[in-house]
Amino acid sequence: MRTSIATVCLSGTLEEKLLACAKAGFDGIEIFEQDLLVSPMSPEEVKAMAHRLGLTLDLFQPFRDFEGVTEEQLQANLHRAEAKFQLMQRLGMDLMLLCSNVGTATINDDGLFVDQIRQLSDLAARYDVRIAYEALAWGKYVDTYQHSWEIVKRVDRANVGLCIDSFHILSRGDDPSEIAAIPGEKIFFVQLADAPVLSMDILSWSRHYRLFPGQGGFALDQFLAELVRSGYDGIISLEIFNDVFRQSNVERTAIDGLRSLQWLQSTTAQLLSSTGEHYALDLKVLPGEQDATGFDFAEIRTEDPERVAGMLAQLGFSFSGQHRRKPVQLWSSGEAKIIINSQRSRGVEAAVSGFGVLVPDPVASGERGGALLATRVPRQQTNNEQDLPGFVAPDSTEVFFSSPANTRNWVLEFEDAGPAASAVPSGPILGIDHINIAQPWQCFDESVLFYSSVLNLKARPGTEVPSPMGLVRSQVLSTADSAVRLALNIVPQGLESIIERNHEYPEHVALRADDIIEVARNARARGMEFLQVPDNYYEDLAARFDLDAQLLDTLKELHLLYDRDEAGEFLHFYTKTLGNMFLEVVERRSGYDGYGAPNAPVRLASQFESNRWSRNL
Amino acid sequence: MRTSIATVCLSGTLEEKLLACAKAGFDGIEIFEQDLLVSPMSPEEVKAMAHRLGLTLDLFQPFRDFEGVTEEQLQANLHRAEAKFQLMQRLGMDLMLLCSNVGTATINDDGLFVDQIRQLSDLAARYDVRIAYEALAWGKYVDTYQHSWEIVKRVDRANVGLCIDSFHILSRGDDPSEIAAIPGEKIFFVQLADAPVLSMDILSWSRHYRLFPGQGGFALDQFLAELVRSGYDGIISLEIFNDVFRQSNVERTAIDGLRSLQWLQSTTAQLLSSTGEHYALDLKVLPGEQDATGFDFAEIRTEDPERVAGMLAQLGFSFSGQHRRKPVQLWSSGEAKIIINSQRSRGVEAAVSGFGVLVPDPVASGERGGALLATRVPRQQTNNEQDLPGFVAPDSTEVFFSSPANTRNWVLEFEDAGPAASAVPSGPILGIDHINIAQPWQCFDESVLFYSSVLNLKARPGTEVPSPMGLVRSQVLSTADSAVRLALNIVPQGLESIIERNHEYPEHVALRADDIIEVARNARARGMEFLQVPDNYYEDLAARFDLDAQLLDTLKELHLLYDRDEAGEFLHFYTKTLGNMFLEVVERRSGYDGYGAPNAPVRLASQFESNRWSRNL
Repeated sequence: MRTSIATVCLSGTLEEKLLACAKAGFDGIEIFEQDLLVSPMSPEEVKAMAHRLGLTLDLFQPFRDFEGVTEEQLQANLHRAEAKFQLMQRLGMDLMLLCSNVGTATINDDGLFVDQIRQLSDLAARYDVRIAYEALAWGKYVDTYQHSWEIVKRVDRANVGLCIDSFHILSRGDDPSEIAAIPGEKIFFVQLADAPVLSMDILSWSRHYRLFPGQGGFALDQFLAELVRSGYDGIISLEIFNDVFRQSNVERTAIDGLRSLQWLQSTTAQLLSSTGEHYALDLKVLPGEQDATGFDFAEIRTEDPERVAGMLAQLGFSFSGQHRRKPVQLWSSGEAKIIINSQRSRGVEAAVSGFGVLVPDPVASGERGGALLATRVPRQQTNNEQDLPGFVAPDSTEVFFSSPANTRNWVLEFEDAGPAASAVPSGPILGIDHINIAQPWQCFDESVLFYSSVLNLKARPGTEVPSPMGLVRSQVLSTADSAVRLALNIVPQGLESIIERNHEYPEHVALRADDIIEVARNARARGMEFLQVPDNYYEDLAARFDLDAQLLDTLKELHLLYDRDEAGEFLHFYTKTLGNMFLEVVERRSGYDGYGAPNAPVRLASQFESNRWSRNL
Repeated sequence: MRTSIATVCLSGTLEEKLLACAKAGFDGIEIFEQDLLVSPMSPEEVKAMAHRLGLTLDLFQPFRDFEGVTEEQLQANLHRAEAKFQLMQRLGMDLMLLCSNVGTATINDDGLFVDQIRQLSDLAARYDVRIAYEALAWGKYVDTYQHSWEIVKRVDRANVGLCIDSFHILSRGDDPSEIAAIPGEKIFFVQLADAPVLSMDILSWSRHYRLFPGQGGFALDQFLAELVRSGYDGIISLEIFNDVFRQSNVERTAIDGLRSLQWLQSTTAQLLSSTGEHYALDLKVLPGEQDATGFDFAEIRTEDPERVAGMLAQLGFSFSGQHRRKPVQLWSSGEAKIIINSQRSRGVEAAVSGFGVLVPDPVASGERGGALLATRVPRQQTNNEQDLPGFVAPDSTEVFFSSPANTRNWVLEFEDAGPAASAVPSGPILGIDHINIAQPWQCFDESVLFYSSVLNLKARPGTEVPSPMGLVRSQVLSTADSAVRLALNIVPQGLESIIERNHEYPEHVALRADDIIEVARNARARGMEFLQVPDNYYEDLAARFDLDAQLLDTLKELHLLYDRDEAGEFLHFYTKTLGNMFLEVVERRSGYDGYGAPNAPVRLASQFESNRWSRNL
């Protein structure tokens, strides 16, 4: 499948955009006219540079407000069009996007649209230009693809076809299934955009909130399947108006975009193969799709391993060995393995730096990550060490893939890690329940796509948590069976302006227990410092739930938090924050599948309070 | 008028919120339960602290999902309510907000609502609590104030009344005029919120985008007038859910909020006095409402005055004197006065630091600013200098008020500034057209209220300008006659992550000429460096406008930009950026009243390009 992207998706100058698209690996780009207009590069330079970089210039866009106008206006529009055809010639381009008229159309007459577009067609033919007509969702008279197709059919010219854009169809809730009936060769261009499910006016939604495929709520695999059924075998392009992408690093955004197309063509191919359909478009299937069966380990980076080790010991973890070559310790309890890494830790008090997941075939996951343009974690296998393919997530967390067999091997790299360490030693902590990772606002959508495509996780409905430093947006991604759960939290942007004393938003590893009260009691006996929970919280618990008085006393005594839903109960507690990380212990009773979201504001406020006091000392 | 604010409007801990509200000067606060629940302060401490600070605790809120439920659910709700009544007793509070049921109501029966609210009333009476019933715009069965009033009437209890919230009424487009017919004493509480005009689902709009009165699109003076007509003479409170306020500095937000109420009560009083109505609510009128008649001066701070002076000389400005006491120069041309200030300029290459406007009575403007809680600019009047009341805007621009008489005086503080300097000397630049100020995203709404209330400017429709570093949101504020025009530009947040080489967004002073071509030619002859304009821009101009070929050549030769609308034509050019500022020269032909917005992307891209190259050297 040939891939393209509109320059308007990206930040920077036109030159920077071209470089970033080529570096990411796109086949071509759409020239968004505004980007050319403000560029010091001449059209000839753009043409030559694209050629040197191996990028095709696929679509010149947009040409607006053409049809449905008075004769006088038409002549002005043809004059404007001719100037653009001449410009396209200098660029070596042959395809122009014509948007259905939004602003200047005054006459609602399909016959007139047809006639005027034919005049454009005649003029375009003189410059060997083809016209791709697109129905904008907010077009004045033409706002559905069925209508634009009706007009293109009536225009009946070889150089006039359709441009199909998923946003303009799916944002209206229109059914894309009639696309399959359009002859593929009359679809001149395809633009794909995803979007979050929002209820707002379509124009604002379109101009600010579009997303790359896989980052929003549209079923783009089904959409692309309809296109494929039409016989379309041309370029699949991205046209994403997104306020964040427009101000983010151009190279990262380009990679994010191409990743979305790699992911989408694979899921679409799977969809089509499940129905046994034949099609012309060459859709590449990604290797290594497999569900993770659990966390392998969590890794904490710290320049002061003793304090992290102390916390783990208080929770009942056992020391399972020192790495034979590196300043890295392994601690375990049940299936939970925590690696304390002091490499590259200068100035790092403590931080969640990465994690591993277990998959049947780690090598295939490594290939998958590579095909999805993920950045490999450089890792030495000196001294016969186990190879674990790993990638750097957009938020800079390092994510590794292992298998039970590989894990047995890497555990042995830790001296003293006898068979006990690899054979699920007993301990009050049974495993890792979830990992909570902070997200800078610039990379949230990129992260959602990264974790859902590279790790094959599914995004669950998001939530928002009030905190003293603003609303924290939270997005859970998990495997279908919840064996691996990640919570991504977007850090409020104003953080630094409110509290210079707390530059970072703490991340955490949540550990699973089946008797949290015992874990808490023992930890307390061993001197653990818990996150404080205000008395007011327990009074509210009593008002909301019909709780046993003794349980309530125990919760309060041990700083445990409580939640309940239809399925079951959730008890949890938090340790004090160390540097930029803390630990949580959770007990899920019956089928409780959440994360105690009603308690998250208590946690955030208490951390804010304790931060405040500790920094003021 | 007694003022209050809900703690949910603000960032920080409950303690910080109380301190900030007291410091700003609110009479009381609403306790948003969540803020108490996450606080380590006991209810008794909150009560005592509020007492010490002189704040009343006006409303406990919200109590949700009470009425329209099954008998079993009702008992649980009464249990929950009683716990909250007990809590309110400890807080010393007597008014609770009851929101119309959104989540748990299953029975749509006004009679049942009445009966269940009566049971709540009985229970509340035992704790001397009054209930203010509020129709949420998204209430399941009760979603208008007319409906909630119908229910309150039928409940017919002394301790049950209404809470009226402007957002829930105006967001639906409902007519507030029936509020006037409700007996004022049955309105127990009033919450005011403004909001931008958005087309999105009301719940999201409400939870994220509310604004303080005067910052959005609601006619809150008319709304408050209806309340006044009801005979209401109680507290006017603010309940603003705003993502930005929740993560901004708490003290600034509290001041911003109280400013909005000072402004609103004044405009409402004026509205009511124009109709000669009598009313019970004590509405304070702000002093000093007057339109500025023009800019007095613009001030540029720089550690290197020679470079700024050089630019001004190239544009035809004359040196009009050195201040007799301070390292400050005055340059003038026509009515344009530019002050080059080298005080407090260490490390400042060049920046627009402030401006003055002319008003009939500067002292009254000074009083107005004080009443609007604006921060005074500390300014010495040693040595018999002219007093100019000045305030620091939220974006840290210094704004001064002068009169023609005062201006004659302060100009004389500059030695060599003979009568020529104060008597509108001739020069090709005629005056200051507008000033463009960068806004950090945290203070945009605060700035709109500041400039519209303290300077008495009106906000015009906003626009968005694409740039290589993201969309720049632009908001013009001006006097009715456009004698004073300000453009506020919100700087894209990702700026630093894209271009470390350009930390600041440049600001500028736009100067008015009536022969811009001559100004440009002379400036060029004097060696001025213009902002580069790409050739592609001129080709597009030719395609869009039917321009005289000679004019087009001249535009291109002199790097002039061009725009046209129904009223007239606009020609303008930009100087090279110096530090963090540049100058623009504009010529308005016929009645053109805009700012050349279609050309702004060209300017931003060209500045981005030139920044890039100069920083890479």
